[in-house]
Amino acid sequence: MLRLTAPQHSRLHAAATLDVSLGGAELNVAVALANLGVSTEWVSALPDNPLGRRVVDELRRHGVDTGHVVWKPEARLGLYFLEEGAYPRPSQVLYDRQGSAITRMVEGDVDWGEALRDARVLHVTGITPALCDSCRQRTEEAVRAAGAAGVKVSLDTNYRSKLWSPAEAQECLEALLGDVNLLFTSPSDLEAVFGRSGAPEDMAAELRSRYSLEAVALSLRVPGSAQGRLCRQSLLLTDRLWASEAVEHDVVDALGAGDAFTAGVLYGWLQGDPLLGLRMGDTLAAMKQTVPGDLADFTLAEVEAVMSAPSARVHR
Amino acid sequence: MLRLTAPQHSRLHAAATLDVSLGGAELNVAVALANLGVSTEWVSALPDNPLGRRVVDELRRHGVDTGHVVWKPEARLGLYFLEEGAYPRPSQVLYDRQGSAITRMVEGDVDWGEALRDARVLHVTGITPALCDSCRQRTEEAVRAAGAAGVKVSLDTNYRSKLWSPAEAQECLEALLGDVNLLFTSPSDLEAVFGRSGAPEDMAAELRSRYSLEAVALSLRVPGSAQGRLCRQSLLLTDRLWASEAVEHDVVDALGAGDAFTAGVLYGWLQGDPLLGLRMGDTLAAMKQTVPGDLADFTLAEVEAVMSAPSARVHR
Amino acid sequence: MLRLTAPQHSRLHAAATLDVSLGGAELNVAVALANLGVSTEWVSALPDNPLGRRVVDELRRHGVDTGHVVWKPEARLGLYFLEEGAYPRPSQVLYDRQGSAITRMVEGDVDWGEALRDARVLHVTGITPALCDSCRQRTEEAVRAAGAAGVKVSLDTNYRSKLWSPAEAQECLEALLGDVNLLFTSPSDLEAVFGRSGAPEDMAAELRSRYSLEAVALSLRVPGSAQGRLCRQSLLLTDRLWASEAVEHDVVDALGAGDAFTAGVLYGWLQGDPLLGLRMGDTLAAMKQTVPGDLADFTLAEVEAVMSAPSARVHR
Amino acid sequence: MLRLTAPQHSRLHAAATLDVSLGGAELNVAVALANLGVSTEWVSALPDNPLGRRVVDELRRHGVDTGHVVWKPEARLGLYFLEEGAYPRPSQVLYDRQGSAITRMVEGDVDWGEALRDARVLHVTGITPALCDSCRQRTEEAVRAAGAAGVKVSLDTNYRSKLWSPAEAQECLEALLGDVNLLFTSPSDLEAVFGRSGAPEDMAAELRSRYSLEAVALSLRVPGSAQGRLCRQSLLLTDRLWASEAVEHDVVDALGAGDAFTAGVLYGWLQGDPLLGLRMGDTLAAMKQTVPGDLADFTLAEVEAVMSAPSARVHR
Amino acid sequence: MLRLTAPQHSRLHAAATLDVSLGGAELNVAVALANLGVSTEWVSALPDNPLGRRVVDELRRHGVDTGHVVWKPEARLGLYFLEEGAYPRPSQVLYDRQGSAITRMVEGDVDWGEALRDARVLHVTGITPALCDSCRQRTEEAVRAAGAAGVKVSLDTNYRSKLWSPAEAQECLEALLGDVNLLFTSPSDLEAVFGRSGAPEDMAAELRSRYSLEAVALSLRVPGSAQGRLCRQSLLLTDRLWASEAVEHDVVDALGAGDAFTAGVLYGWLQGDPLLGLRMGDTLAAMKQTVPGDLADFTLAEVEAVMSAPSARVHR
Amino acid sequence: MLRLTAPQHSRLHAAATLDVSLGGAELNVAVALANLGVSTEWVSALPDNPLGRRVVDELRRHGVDTGHVVWKPEARLGLYFLEEGAYPRPSQVLYDRQGSAITRMVEGDVDWGEALRDARVLHVTGITPALCDSCRQRTEEAVRAAGAAGVKVSLDTNYRSKLWSPAEAQECLEALLGDVNLLFTSPSDLEAVFGRSGAPEDMAAELRSRYSLEAVALSLRVPGSAQGRLCRQSLLLTDRLWASEAVEHDVVDALGAGDAFTAGVLYGWLQGDPLLGLRMGDTLAAMKQTVPGDLADFTLAEVEAVMSAPSARVHR
Repeated sequence: MLRLTAPQHSRLHAAATLDVSLGGAELNVAVALANLGVSTEWVSALPDNPLGRRVVDELRRHGVDTGHVVWKPEARLGLYFLEEGAYPRPSQVLYDRQGSAITRMVEGDVDWGEALRDARVLHVTGITPALCDSCRQRTEEAVRAAGAAGVKVSLDTNYRSKLWSPAEAQECLEALLGDVNLLFTSPSDLEAVFGRSGAPEDMAAELRSRYSLEAVALSLRVPGSAQGRLCRQSLLLTDRLWASEAVEHDVVDALGAGDAFTAGVLYGWLQGDPLLGLRMGDTLAAMKQTVPGDLADFTLAEVEAVMSAPSARVHR
Repeated sequence: MLRLTAPQHSRLHAAATLDVSLGGAELNVAVALANLGVSTEWVSALPDNPLGRRVVDELRRHGVDTGHVVWKPEARLGLYFLEEGAYPRPSQVLYDRQGSAITRMVEGDVDWGEALRDARVLHVTGITPALCDSCRQRTEEAVRAAGAAGVKVSLDTNYRSKLWSPAEAQECLEALLGDVNLLFTSPSDLEAVFGRSGAPEDMAAELRSRYSLEAVALSLRVPGSAQGRLCRQSLLLTDRLWASEAVEHDVVDALGAGDAFTAGVLYGWLQGDPLLGLRMGDTLAAMKQTVPGDLADFTLAEVEAVMSAPSARVHR
Repeated sequence: MLRLTAPQHSRLHAAATLDVSLGGAELNVAVALANLGVSTEWVSALPDNPLGRRVVDELRRHGVDTGHVVWKPEARLGLYFLEEGAYPRPSQVLYDRQGSAITRMVEGDVDWGEALRDARVLHVTGITPALCDSCRQRTEEAVRAAGAAGVKVSLDTNYRSKLWSPAEAQECLEALLGDVNLLFTSPSDLEAVFGRSGAPEDMAAELRSRYSLEAVALSLRVPGSAQGRLCRQSLLLTDRLWASEAVEHDVVDALGAGDAFTAGVLYGWLQGDPLLGLRMGDTLAAMKQTVPGDLADFTLAEVEAVMSAPSARVHR
Repeated sequence: MLRLTAPQHSRLHAAATLDVSLGGAELNVAVALANLGVSTEWVSALPDNPLGRRVVDELRRHGVDTGHVVWKPEARLGLYFLEEGAYPRPSQVLYDRQGSAITRMVEGDVDWGEALRDARVLHVTGITPALCDSCRQRTEEAVRAAGAAGVKVSLDTNYRSKLWSPAEAQECLEALLGDVNLLFTSPSDLEAVFGRSGAPEDMAAELRSRYSLEAVALSLRVPGSAQGRLCRQSLLLTDRLWASEAVEHDVVDALGAGDAFTAGVLYGWLQGDPLLGLRMGDTLAAMKQTVPGDLADFTLAEVEAVMSAPSARVHR
Repeated sequence: MLRLTAPQHSRLHAAATLDVSLGGAELNVAVALANLGVSTEWVSALPDNPLGRRVVDELRRHGVDTGHVVWKPEARLGLYFLEEGAYPRPSQVLYDRQGSAITRMVEGDVDWGEALRDARVLHVTGITPALCDSCRQRTEEAVRAAGAAGVKVSLDTNYRSKLWSPAEAQECLEALLGDVNLLFTSPSDLEAVFGRSGAPEDMAAELRSRYSLEAVALSLRVPGSAQGRLCRQSLLLTDRLWASEAVEHDVVDALGAGDAFTAGVLYGWLQGDPLLGLRMGDTLAAMKQTVPGDLADFTLAEVEAVMSAPSARVHR
Repeated sequence: MLRLTAPQHSRLHAAATLDVSLGGAELNVAVALANLGVSTEWVSALPDNPLGRRVVDELRRHGVDTGHVVWKPEARLGLYFLEEGAYPRPSQVLYDRQGSAITRMVEGDVDWGEALRDARVLHVTGITPALCDSCRQRTEEAVRAAGAAGVKVSLDTNYRSKLWSPAEAQECLEALLGDVNLLFTSPSDLEAVFGRSGAPEDMAAELRSRYSLEAVALSLRVPGSAQGRLCRQSLLLTDRLWASEAVEHDVVDALGAGDAFTAGVLYGWLQGDPLLGLRMGDTLAAMKQTVPGDLADFTLAEVEAVMSAPSARVHR
């Protein structure tokens, strides 16, 4: 999607200019991983116009492969408009993705066998299947193909109440979970979609067991030192429980933090080092929020430097 | 529609920011007339979100009444993206109005009898009926209601080949022409839609006679002094033929010139002074192209000053 | 007034561009109320030039009626230049309103009987009468006319030490207070102008009793969690005392918060619900500070959403 | 004066930002000469606030001495707002200098004897005496002091019809002309103020003779190759007549061209080379119009390079 | 190189911001060809810092392969500062490439045999060998490797008098010409470097014969319709002479036009269609000048559309 | 140096524009003192091009004398690129000063006897001697000349690990310290360069005694109220110990704070009031961080106002 942001906390209905950038849950994860040096491909559909061209250009810029993108001549590019909040006024996202290219995809548009060749993990989210019936079928198609090819599947629940009801989400996500190896979710998603409540670690354990997951990663929200000040903490449950420390951080742009976290955890997971993944996830999520836009545009060296010495100082 | 413009002749697929303004054929005419001091209302549908709110706010800013706007909660706002050209590269407009609020209007959404009370003229264009079947029905509904209420009807053919075929346009526009009093068109529209050719004044005369029109206004394109330099000229046929002189002008932003011309002609027509209308139309169209955006945001005094003394100088 | 702001905390004496917006104590209240859906009119004088036109255009944009604005051909528009501070450097306001249109108003310029027809409340501030003798007379004229027409009068003391001495302010404001029903003030104004000190609630009670006021609203300043972090709290005394809780909030732009508070309190007062007014006043004042400019450009639904759930999160 | 310009040809009454720069007839001449390497001082009054500080800072930046500036604590800085035109819409200047610091100057504020020590020429314009009676007296005071000190006087008529009537201008300027050595004017000023008409060279000759002037410089306006395209030509009459060739040039910003011409002519005159002055004046005036702002910010080497090879190419 | 441009024709020594883009003769050709769909690689050296990373990112964005870039940790990135002119003031380029990464390359840094595998043409310019002795050796190394591998060599003389003397240029370029197949040059380069004069077609013929070139392409400069208005024309000599028509065009940004011409000619040459190449070269060069920056960022479809219908109109 | 800053916390390798300002340790001190009203000169070398011209223009703007600047035609201007961080991501400075004009200075370029005439203090830093051997010699030359002329010497250690090793720094700085009267340093510099550790006041006392210094000023870093929130504290040791209170402040731009502190301490020292210097140093350092850029552009009155009443409020 193209993200159109009203600059400098101005109101969307009155802004004279909009800042243009790229965003989208799966795209954000792909870009973050590519910037860390992981070989990555983004598979989706785009309209055959300057806006679609922009998405591919920007992905190539970050080194993400776009060879299986499906071009849909008559479709539109999904957009979202962002008005950045400040406490106590929340940020507002206005989605405008009706009729976007991905909703025009049909069976066979992507040869998943070929697209997944040499892949180690397929990452999907709960947003795409929520967009339309055909989007749900395409997601299931990809997940099944991954299963068939021995490619691990990572799923972020990413529940969006404007897109579907909890019941619809639950039905779809539960059907997918049978093929999922690594699950990203949050207490609020678990409550909204699965009706779960309780201690986060207990919910994670129950899910891991019920769906035979290799790992469950949970993003927690903890209060900062002052009203409106943000703080992150997370849990990762594999065969043991890993917990990060709460980290307060500055917020230049709050969007995309969850996807940056996912990318960091996947990075560690692919290295066989869950704790590294958890720490890298929290660090990337915090770093993402210190730059404008949805994307975590950081090299591995940059992330490692911050992990070893977070700082408000100037490096000369 | 919201217009999103890549600034400073930059390419749409690479621009880091977009300038936001308002545009739309009927809206442009309404705003230009309101700025000239004519009491004006814009009747259409908008999504009930910050972008829809923006349209109403901006119209109110220019003094255009928006009391009969229909709010459609689930719809989107039509957008168009503009990349500004420079000779020999043409400007490019990318329309994105699939599913816009106007396509969701149903019969009875507007009480046209009430909306047209005290109106002297209803202005419609060939763009709205080209958008969807229901849009065509709404246009016909409005035109019939005007006829019933003794309100004159003005139509701008505004043929857009991406929206419908010549045959579709011809069938629809001919059906409307029976109720039209004042027609705005151009030699290229006449050729594309009605298959007419020949001298502009002859085509205008034939149309005026066939459809019993009070007046036909034609925008002509004439070459400027250099490649890529623009120049305007126009004709108005009532019971006699009025022709303006060709005027070369600077181009800061070429969009909306035709609608500014329409507003100027309507202004004179409402005053019973066709020649004033023709001169004001050409002047407004030239002035519009000296400011960014689609809108002719000029007071009557400003237009009169330029009509009496066009100038590249500085007024102190 | 036009507000010209040095962008991004840059210094006024060196800024390469200035951001243009609108401001003024009474105007801010009118805009905030109109955005909440209250029918509002702003009555003042403007120069008959592009800057005056801008004020009317912007007010119309927000739905504020400007039908009784008096146009003064030779006058200027009052300006103010703003340099935004950051702790420990205060923001600086440089007023430039010498000879502004309002100082040229003469008796009879406004037919107050007509202007106040159907009004429920007239809001004035201590700034206008401080500008010039004639401004004071115009204020008194309006207040008397309101009294005669049975329209309630609201007054914000808004003491500005650069405009008049405490003695001048006291004499003028005390004369007005006889006709005032709702008073907005602060402990610092009460100390500076009326020489009062003591607990805020006691000062409010004493004023309410002495001038037979229906209500007294007090803005308090309380320390935030860190140096330079802002926090709001307020009191409203009617026949009982209502006190809000202290709220810490982010500050994008501190200007206009007091006027937003006033608008919120007036909203509740007009609804006969003082506590709603107090809460809405504090919320609007905090929300105003999260957007650039003086104006509280929020709909009722937006304010109600924040009142029920203030948040630093993203609403999708 | 501070110049506040609506950017990118946008309308002043709607611009979201204004570009800030410096302008003023005498100031422009001083800056242009200082940039050419001529030792220059600007003598005037400024308000003791950030805007006044800005004027001095910017003048120092260009190397103009500001040691005799008079600081007026309660005054304002004169402003002017600029809306840039494009053919056929003229640029509009909105002056806002009522009550500016210069109108508060009183006799003796400047010790002209000291200020003019070591000066070779005093340059004044017809704008300052038009602002107020006291401004006229200050101008006369300076001109008389120059006469007494043997400093040559240069006067640019610069007639502004919004500031005074032709009769007032004529009376004042004729009184000054007795002490003037070098006169800058134009056919339109000569017609408006002195009721002269005829061939430019004849008018110049008649003036030179009547007022015993050393030299008269005339800026002429000649049509360019297309509507709205600008072209310059000028005459200089000393004991013989020097005429430049007409030069068509691009226009980025038309303001300040006349003052740049004056600076160029003064440069040559101070070198005893009238023809150099005329050519440098035309070149500087054309160059000024290729950059934003009022100021001719060019070094001598830059001007000489353009004089020897005007070009639309790129110098690498 | 990074290009840092003073915006909006402002002066470099006073601009408050600089626009950042990419430029460089060989890089511009690579990007233009990649955008046309030709498989392209750029081989050079970059510093291992954020600025070097930027160059690779941007090249990837356009689809140019960067796999053989040599990273030099201690080097700097070459910069150039641009001040955009307007007639009669020329644009000024300030190069700042002392010590840039390419000057640190040593023999063997690039395995040319591997880098040129599957290549059809190697394009070099006269700028790189002019930078330093080692740069000249690297250029010769590449050209020799191409000869050895049967890859055609294209050379653009691109004489820069600030980098080397005509004698140095002549000696170096003549040595290279023995291995060159396609030569890009201009009458002014031929005069400056080779001391040639005469009709362009004669000079081309003489060069083609002397160095056994397959083709010689010449960019000519012809006067436009007005002072400062640009116009292009070119010649291509293979076994016959192809001449394009002179085309006047708008100029948004004059830089990179020559490289765009080269890319267009190479495109046709690779297709075996010299006339297509010449027309595409002229069109691309004109189109490049209608967008900001050095790069010709146009798809094949876009160029073909302009070749068939150059226009100052709006395409909807 | 020219400072090129990626705006709004954007990443340097992706920013579309860069903000241009001036910076440099000695230059920052000179500008801050000049703005406080102290007569100041900056002595260094600059390239004879628009970028060098910019440095002199900007220094003149602040009233800093530039009469002894040495112009080096072939040199470049030192640059530094800044990416602004936000916690936990540090700001990044990318220096690009290889071959800058100062490295081309030779003995005798500056007549230090003349340059230091009437000076009371010469301020040097540890950055210049770290740049190159000749830079070290120039620094020593200046310090010796000051000693010879009875001018006090102030030195800021300003250790930069990218420029030289601790051993090199120690050797050079110890050699200079024999002529130094006032030393600015920090615990981290003392540890890195001199291998000192312990309580700051003890380290200061030991240094003061060993090198017979009049005064040692130490900048301390103390934790703020929240992660990433900055706080300042400092010590000044003369014949007694002065300690300031820790002050938490907002951070708009962290660069240049140390130089602003130095300027404040020097101001007090020149007045013979060390405590005033310490308080002014801390206040200036905090104020500097509330504005963009390296420079402390504040008048004495502004600093005194903040010292007496630091505030997050608005001054009207």
